[in-house]
Parts: sequence; structure tokens; C-alpha cells
Amino acid sequence: MANAIRALAMDAVEKAKSGHPGLPMGAADIATVLYTRVLKFDPAAPHWFDRDRFVLSAGHGSMLLYALLHLTGFQSISMEDIKNFRQLGSRTPGHPEVEATEGVETTTGPLGQGISTAVGMAIAERHLAAEYGPDIVDHHTYVLASDGDLMEGISQEAIALAGHLKLSRLIVLFDDNGISIDGPIRLADSVDQLKRFEAAGWDACRIDGHDPEAILAAIEAAQKSDKPSLIACRTTIAFGAPTKAGSEKSHGSPLGAEEIAGARKALGWDAPPFVVPDDILSLWRTAGARSRDLRAAWESRVAALPADRKAELERRIAGAVPAEKLDAALAEIKRQLAADPKDRASRSSSELALGVLVPAFPELIGGSADLTGSNNTRPKGMPALTPENYGGRFIHYGIREHGMAAAMNGMALHGGVVPYSGTFLVFSDYCRPSIRLACIMGRRVIHVMTHDSIGLGEDGPTHQPVEHLAALRAIPHLLVFRPCDAVETAECWSLALGSNHRPSVLALSRQNLPQLRDATAAGNPCAGGAYELLPAEGGPAKVSLFASGSEVAIAVAARKRLAEFGVPARVVSVPCFELFLDRPEAERDAVIGEAPVRVAVEAAIRQGWDAIVGSHGGFVGMTGFGASGPAPDLYRHFGITPERVAEVALGKLQAL
Amino acid sequence: MANAIRALAMDAVEKAKSGHPGLPMGAADIATVLYTRVLKFDPAAPHWFDRDRFVLSAGHGSMLLYALLHLTGFQSISMEDIKNFRQLGSRTPGHPEVEATEGVETTTGPLGQGISTAVGMAIAERHLAAEYGPDIVDHHTYVLASDGDLMEGISQEAIALAGHLKLSRLIVLFDDNGISIDGPIRLADSVDQLKRFEAAGWDACRIDGHDPEAILAAIEAAQKSDKPSLIACRTTIAFGAPTKAGSEKSHGSPLGAEEIAGARKALGWDAPPFVVPDDILSLWRTAGARSRDLRAAWESRVAALPADRKAELERRIAGAVPAEKLDAALAEIKRQLAADPKDRASRSSSELALGVLVPAFPELIGGSADLTGSNNTRPKGMPALTPENYGGRFIHYGIREHGMAAAMNGMALHGGVVPYSGTFLVFSDYCRPSIRLACIMGRRVIHVMTHDSIGLGEDGPTHQPVEHLAALRAIPHLLVFRPCDAVETAECWSLALGSNHRPSVLALSRQNLPQLRDATAAGNPCAGGAYELLPAEGGPAKVSLFASGSEVAIAVAARKRLAEFGVPARVVSVPCFELFLDRPEAERDAVIGEAPVRVAVEAAIRQGWDAIVGSHGGFVGMTGFGASGPAPDLYRHFGITPERVAEVALGKLQAL
Repeated sequence: MANAIRALAMDAVEKAKSGHPGLPMGAADIATVLYTRVLKFDPAAPHWFDRDRFVLSAGHGSMLLYALLHLTGFQSISMEDIKNFRQLGSRTPGHPEVEATEGVETTTGPLGQGISTAVGMAIAERHLAAEYGPDIVDHHTYVLASDGDLMEGISQEAIALAGHLKLSRLIVLFDDNGISIDGPIRLADSVDQLKRFEAAGWDACRIDGHDPEAILAAIEAAQKSDKPSLIACRTTIAFGAPTKAGSEKSHGSPLGAEEIAGARKALGWDAPPFVVPDDILSLWRTAGARSRDLRAAWESRVAALPADRKAELERRIAGAVPAEKLDAALAEIKRQLAADPKDRASRSSSELALGVLVPAFPELIGGSADLTGSNNTRPKGMPALTPENYGGRFIHYGIREHGMAAAMNGMALHGGVVPYSGTFLVFSDYCRPSIRLACIMGRRVIHVMTHDSIGLGEDGPTHQPVEHLAALRAIPHLLVFRPCDAVETAECWSLALGSNHRPSVLALSRQNLPQLRDATAAGNPCAGGAYELLPAEGGPAKVSLFASGSEVAIAVAARKRLAEFGVPARVVSVPCFELFLDRPEAERDAVIGEAPVRVAVEAAIRQGWDAIVGSHGGFVGMTGFGASGPAPDLYRHFGITPERVAEVALGKLQAL
Repeated sequence: MANAIRALAMDAVEKAKSGHPGLPMGAADIATVLYTRVLKFDPAAPHWFDRDRFVLSAGHGSMLLYALLHLTGFQSISMEDIKNFRQLGSRTPGHPEVEATEGVETTTGPLGQGISTAVGMAIAERHLAAEYGPDIVDHHTYVLASDGDLMEGISQEAIALAGHLKLSRLIVLFDDNGISIDGPIRLADSVDQLKRFEAAGWDACRIDGHDPEAILAAIEAAQKSDKPSLIACRTTIAFGAPTKAGSEKSHGSPLGAEEIAGARKALGWDAPPFVVPDDILSLWRTAGARSRDLRAAWESRVAALPADRKAELERRIAGAVPAEKLDAALAEIKRQLAADPKDRASRSSSELALGVLVPAFPELIGGSADLTGSNNTRPKGMPALTPENYGGRFIHYGIREHGMAAAMNGMALHGGVVPYSGTFLVFSDYCRPSIRLACIMGRRVIHVMTHDSIGLGEDGPTHQPVEHLAALRAIPHLLVFRPCDAVETAECWSLALGSNHRPSVLALSRQNLPQLRDATAAGNPCAGGAYELLPAEGGPAKVSLFASGSEVAIAVAARKRLAEFGVPARVVSVPCFELFLDRPEAERDAVIGEAPVRVAVEAAIRQGWDAIVGSHGGFVGMTGFGASGPAPDLYRHFGITPERVAEVALGKLQAL
């Protein structure tokens, strides 16, 4: 049965003239045991909520997964699909893509992401099991990881978190083939992986990865452990290839006709390319169907739930956030703001919003990378998620931004929960690869990122984001919110939570901000991405001022100063570029307005703002890194002041 | 003596009303032993090349370092400077900044960076010791690291690399205080750090971090080891503070007057704020001067070197790359290109350039994150740097982009070497925090980043950079080169190597590109960032086409197509935005030209291009993620073709 995988992988890579045959051939025995004797799944119901999850962390071995899906009977992968491996528009892209192919649990390829994402899946599973009981949620998360996955630093963050949380349902099969692209692993690595995992609170063992009984025994032992488990499976890369087995030459290139012929002979595989003999296919299909009864039993148990509990479970599985519930929460937050108007840092405004959202939406799982008190992501009374209380809803991720972001992706992929978490905006750089994956996958994860400019003050340039807003806005599909006050913060939270298929970043201030918006007004103007906050007075606008976040108050003050010079100016708040740029041109033009002078102000670099103010528009912001000092000193030093904004606007006016 | 550090830290943080007293007070004993009995340094010669390096990886504890520098007698830090802690323009910024303060070896603050940077310093030391012998290079690298440093994933990459390379001169003192910002470490972490370091090939032990003799004995044992060493020093955060010692409350806020008074009492420290009693200061100053003879002896040995060897050493220490030598190398590369003109992937052109540069510049230390054959960063005959041969010049970094980038920073900071290395451009995300630090510090590190667009083909969206050029161009101070052919690749290499105080990224293609430039022409037009590659023909230009890298050939073909429509068009190659935007406006305008229509083409997002083509200019590129498929299919699918460029230009012309 394993040779069916090997043959399909060799042949598909050969036909595509591109791909990675080594891993599928080396790990075929592991995968066969997993999919035919261990994994709980049903090809007829790829989205069955209580299925075991399988993550191919070594995403370059995608043909392993496509072969498994085809052989076990997923409708998503026909033999035609396998012949179309790596072709444009196929269901069999070069690396597995969750949106392209049913049966793929997460998009992998960038190393270290899969194993770390799996940690989030395993957290979601334990949390939902605590909430719904083992009759409804009770499954494992399996990972196939490569040397590369374990060398990437993110894996350390992930395994440390998994060990700390005692995620015993997480079982990692390490394709321990001793080979990476440059050659033998010993060229670059001497880590004792078993000892390293044990140090992180895991069980770890090493077995022969070509011995099915040893594989099964190790998995069964791991299932009984009260810790997560690493099973290092010694394998030969490109097992069966006569000259390239055990060599890096088989990693990322087609084997070639001669080598494939030799492998067929060595493996005793007579079938022509893209043909799986009926008897073998039949064994696979039977194995693929073996959990059907389990699924039916699970469906009966769900059907037997009380109606409201069943409806709530289905809502959570669907990731549905009812608009009316969201609107009610937003109204309640605004009510609180109207009752207690005062200057607030937007991070505090976010905490106030969470104080309403967290009780209203039980699917929210919060957290912080060891900056809980600074990120304000833990509203009062939110219990911690710990090994003793998986039902808790706040995760102390530790100083592990990258692992946190990947785990959030895993939770969102698992479903039933909506993860949000916190760190400083400057540390978005530490978790960017995971944020990018959330964008590629279109998953709702919400990153609260505070201390969003030089306004954080004394911690200095290493902690002051300058280019991060631009760099995040550059990532396709990401929503980057930068609200200007408590009202906008609540509105942006509502948009982030309501965006079922987009990840969000909320960039929030450390420093206090005045409340610029009327909390008693209904509606959510942030939904348009940008809107006129204050109109021109005393005549048609000669100047349009655009700003986001903490600089909107500066624009408001500059408007007043311009009025003193007899220049009518309007202020446009721009809490979200992406939502604004998604709108039809006519709507955008209406917001941008017809004032002859446009000036933007943001305590960050200009890149991106030209789309709003034009390449000849004015800009007041940063041109280099920040500095250490009290925030007001810094704003003055870098010239991000109402006076400077007015001066730039007046200069532009004069130059007309 | 240690209490002098504690008092200065308490008082400076109190006066600044901001800062981190906990670490300096907790680690004062460790630091005192290190600076008074171990570290080889001379405050009178902060840049003495053979000094021991000390890296405060836990950069938030900056007052520890400032106190040490003041107490041991560095001119850079007076008591006035300490009183100005965290004020704008001071030499005592919130986190240590290498450019702000003599005696600071590297800018730290973002956790995990310091320890990983130190690995690079230790590599440089071993390499230069192999090259120049122990009479000239023979020193240790010491690190003070916190829990946060060890939790960050980058630390795993760094310690695995250090263990693999057997960097026995690297000694990490772990401030094992059991506290992080959220509270006790056990909230988020259960890792057995000793075991983890041992698994990575380190020696590891645990001691009482308040026992000077134990600290000294552990360091002396570590000095004798043939492995890098971790010394976990059990400490009490804010040691001496009556109620906040041992608590996270002392981590990042002033202690308050009452607590400080209590600490003074508990520590028996009677002196008023910012006063160090003469007897204690005198002990510190004596200790600070104790390596003076060692330095004099070293200087004598250097003076006794043969003149050419001495001159070469001094050149390497200064990081000087003579222009004439660089010009000669560039001329030689062009000669080779002229002799063998053919289509080349720019990654191959880079390899060809390195074939000349690596022999010419012995300071170049190459490497790759396990993509040596794909990045083409190892020209023929370049030996690997291994524990058996530290004199080698190519480092197999393993699948550790972040650790690699940090190690490169450390090598550049150490001096004597110029590091370059390779990975895929999409993985710039994995090492962004270290690239950012190189930019803040103004250090020459050269990142070769290949597979720079959808042109990489079948590996698909996870591997195709789309937003990365914009995101890298967003980082202040970074030079992002994207050469269009073999000649530009050589010219960009020359610029990167010649930029002593700026880091560079070379974004290079996987796919073949035609040679567009005449290799027999002298000069380096890339130095201007952008230049006219082809003028308009048949009349004044109606269209200016701008492009970088692999899309310049598309612009050239579009120019031809426009000519068929009777539209004269010129082509401007834009290999480096930053160098272009640094030029005076008049020069920029001359390059941008006066054609009424401007169109840019780059297989990436538009963000940033408005600065050249204007916000109403045309753009042909990407608007979202890529896809898996053969590269030519992808270019067609995403409409990045000469036909489309011509169509956009014609549309703009019609709309005039």
C-alpha cells in the first residue's frame, strides 16, 4: 500500500518536471499506518468536526498528502488532479493549500509553520472538549515534520508551549531522514532532538520509520501519554530509488526516467504511471471508510443535543458571528463610553471593548506574548487556559510571538473558536510569516498590537514601529486597523470580529488619546475604511487632512490652527486602508474630496499614503527610526505636531 | 561593588520615571564578577579589537550596562549621562544602542537578538583567530540573557548553530530569575533549559547568581570547556527591594521612593542618589583598568607584524573596502560577462560575481540557510567553516534564517569580516527583526535573496514573494537591490560591498534573464538607483516605462510593442529605490523624465511605486498572492506581459 504513494509521488513529480519526491517516498510507510490504521476521518465528510487533524508540516512533500487523499477516497483528488500536479488552477498545487483542496487541514510549505499551527489545533480541541464534553469533541492532532521544521526557531516556541500546556493529543511524527537540501544534516546540525523535546515536556522516542508495526506501537503508546509526543522515525529519503535514496539529490527534483524504472523494480511495483492496481486501491478505500460508523455515531450524539446547545455548536463550527449580536455589543460599548467620556489609550479602549465582547462571544480565546498588562487583552474575570483548566479562555503564550501567531492560525483552522492575542506592534516582525499564512488561508485571527508608534516613548527605536504599518498593509488580504479613539476602537473590533475570512491587526496606542467621536451616534463609519470626521468650516475646504490613530487628534488641532489662518480644512480619519481601497473609485473620491491641498499625518513612514494624498500631497510623519525619550519630546523632535501639519498645508497652498 | 550598580539603576529609573530596575538589581552580582574579574577590556580603548565582547541580550536592563561603563571608567558615560537616562539625545537611551554609546557592543532590546548576535561575534572571533593566530585574535564573547531571550525561537536557532560549531569561547550567563512580565515564568513555560542547551551541544550548569565565587568558578570552568557554555544563575529580580524583590512588579517600572529607601537600607547603601562613594568607585576604576597591560602587549604584537600583514589587518578592522579594488573586481566580472554573453538567472549572475569577489576580498564570509545550490552563494572552491576548520569561509547555517541574520549582524559588529548569506526572498519575513536591527545599527550585512517573484513557479504562493520588496523597502536605511541582468547584478554587488554602513538585500531571480546591458561599458549606473536603460526612438518619449529585476526585460519588449503602435517609449531600470530616492529632486526628475505617461512594471504589489510613477501612473504587477504553476503560465495568468504593459500605456495615453 505504501508503494502506491511512492509510485504516485515519483510519477507526478516526473510529469510536472518539478517537485519533491524524496519525502513522500521516505515517509510513505508512516503515512500508510497513519491513514489506514490510526487517523479518524471520513473522506465522505472532509469537514466532520470531530475528525483527527493531520498536518503535513513538511509541505514540500505535498504529493504524500495528495496520494493519501486520492487513495483513501476523497472526492477532492482524482487521478486527473494528480496528473495536474503543480499546474495552474489545479487542486494539487506545489505546497498544500487549505482553500484549494478538501482534506488539506492547513497551508504549509514555509518550514516550522505546520507543527506550530498544529499546536493551536490541539489547544482548540482541548478547549472545546472542556466546553462540550468528549462525546462531541475528542480527537487527536498528528503532524509529519521534517528536520527543517525542527530547525526553524518557531518550532521551539511551539513545542515549549505544547509541553507547557500538556497537549497530550498532539503527536508529532518526525521524518528523521538525516538529509536536508545542502546534504547530510550533520553539515549544519548536531541537536539531540529527543532530548530537546523531552526538555520541553514531551515524550520522545525513536523508531524505524519503515516498520509499520513499530510505527503503530509508537503511536498507540503516544496516545496513552499525558504529554505531547515526538516519534522520531528513522527513514531513508526516496526509499526505493536505486541511486538517489538516502541522498539530498532526491529532495527537490524529479528522479528521472531511469531512476524511476529502477525504483519500480526495487519496490516490486509493476503498474504503469498513474495506475493503482484495483486490489491495492480497494484496500486503501476500505481503510479510508473505516471511521464511517464513528462519524455516524457522532452525528447522532450531536443530533441528540438540546436544540439551543446544538444550534450554538453549529454556529461556532460555522464561525458565524451574527450581525445583530455584534451590533448589540457595539451599542453596549458605546453606551459605556458615552457614560464615562474621558481620554483613553486605544489599548485601554480595546480592553473596554473586550469587556463586552468576551462575555458576549464565548468563541473568543484571548492571549498575549507576555505583555498582558501592556496589551490590555485580558478583561477582568477572563480565566486562564491551563493544563488544569482547558476551559479557560486566556492564554499566556510566553515571549513567543511567532509561535503564538501560528497557534492562532491553528485555532482558526480547527474552528469553534476565534483567537485574538497581543504583542507590541514592532514585534509584528517576529510573527510575520504566520500572519502571512493567515492571509493566504483567509482565516480570522485578530492581532492586538499595542505601542504602535514613537508614542511609546522611552523604550526607544528598537521598540518603536516606524515601517510596520506600511509593511503590514503590504500583505494582501490583511485588515490593518488603527483607530483614533475609543469609539473607533470599538468599531474596528466589531469589524475584525465580523470578518469571517480575513485576519486583522489592531494597532493601538500606549498613550492617552482624546475621544473625538460622539459615542451616542449609531452606525460604524470605520466600515468604509475612511470617512470625514470633521467638515471644513467657513467655506469650501481648501485643505483635506488625513490621519490614522493617535495622529487624528493632531490633524484636528491642525484644522483649528488653519482656521486661525482663515483656511477651511476638513479632517478625514483613515482607520483602515484596506477597507477604503476596496471601495469603488467614486466612493473613494468622495471621501478624499476636492480640496486643492491634501496632507496626511501618521507617525510612521509615508509609503502607501500616496494612494490617498497623491504623490505630490503633503505628508507629516517619520523618515527614519525613532529615538528614546518621553513621547511628547519625540513628537516635537520629529515634527509631528499640529503646527507642522498646518505649516505643510499652508506651504502647499501657497505653491498652488 | 554590586550595590553601586543597584543604586544607580534604582535612582536612574526613578528619575526618568521609566525603565527596568529589576534586572540590573538582580544581575548586579553576575555583572560585577564579569567586569571586575573576568572580562578583558580597557575603558581607555573601547574599540580594542581583541577585547572580550559582552552582550546584554536582555537589553531592557540597560542601566546595568550603563552603570558598568560608568563605574569601570568609560568616558562615554558620565554621571550626568546616567541622570539623563532615557532622555532624548542622551547616551543612555532606554535600550542599549551601539551607535549611541561607546562600550555598548550591539543594540539590544528585541528579545533573542542579543544572544543570537553574540553567536556571530563568536564565529568571527574563531575565524579570525584561525586566520591571524592567537597572538592577534583570542577573546571570549559573554552574554547576559533573560528568560525572554531563551523563549524566543531565534534563540534555538542560535544555540543549535553555536553548539554545532563548537563555539567554546561563547559563554551565556542566564539571569534565571523565574519572572517575566506576566508573573512567574511557570505561567507560560516549563522548559528544562539546562537539558535543552545540552541537547544542542552545550555545557550547562546552574549556580547561585548572588554568590560571586560560584559565578567566577562557573565562568572559569566554562572557559576550559570545548563547547559553548550556559550558566544558569539563579537570581532574585530586584534583589534588595523590600517588597518588590522576586516580583514582576519590579520588571518595568520605577520602584517608587519608599521602596528605594527600603532597598538602600536592606543593601546597606547610604550614599545619596547618583553618588558612588570614592572608595567603591576607586575599586571599580582599578578593576576597569586591569587589562591595560594586556592591551599594550597586544598592540606591541600588532606593531611587530610585517608591514603588509599589519596594513591588511588594520584595513579589515576598519571595514575598509578600497574603491580601486572594488572597481577592478567589477571590471573583471564584466570582462567575463562580455566574453560569455548568455541568458542567466540573476542568482547565477550573483554566483559569477562572487567567483571574483570572494577571492579578492578575504573578509567575505558566505553562507546559506540550507539553500546553497538554489541561492548560488558558494562559488567554486570556497571552503566550509566548520569546527575542524574555522578558517573556512562558507557557513551552512541550516534552516535558520533568523539565527543566520542575527549571526551576520554579530560578525559585522565584531569586525574584520563582511558577512553575506542566502535564502529565498519570501523568507525575509523569517529574519526581519534582525534585518531591522542591522538597519538601526548601520552595519554592512549582505542578504542574497533569490526566487524573488512568481517567477519561481511551481512552489506556489507560500514561496512567492509579492509584498516583500515593498516591505523591505519600508525599512529605513536598508538598500534593496533588484538587478535586471548579469551586469546590473555585478554592479549591485559592488554597491552592497562598498556600503560600509548600510545593510543590503539583493533580490535575485530563479529564472533566466536576458543580458540587457553592454558588459563592455564602464561605470556603474546602478549607483544612482535608477537610470535610463533605453531612450525613446522616433520622437520625444510619450511613455516612460519603469521596472526592476526580471520585469525590465518585459518593459523592453513593451517598448518595442509600443513602437509598433508608433508610440516612442523609453525604459528606466530601477535597481534600487533607496539610492534613487536619496538623490536631489532635480536629478530624480531628470531620470523620471517628462513623458506624459508613466507605467511601472514589477511582479509585486504597487505600494511604493507611486513615488516614481505618481499616484495616477500606470502599474502592472500583483494585487494578491501568487499561485502554483510553471512561471510562464503565471506571468500570463497575472497579466505581467509586454502586451499588458503596452495596453496600460496606450490606455493612459488615450485618456490624456
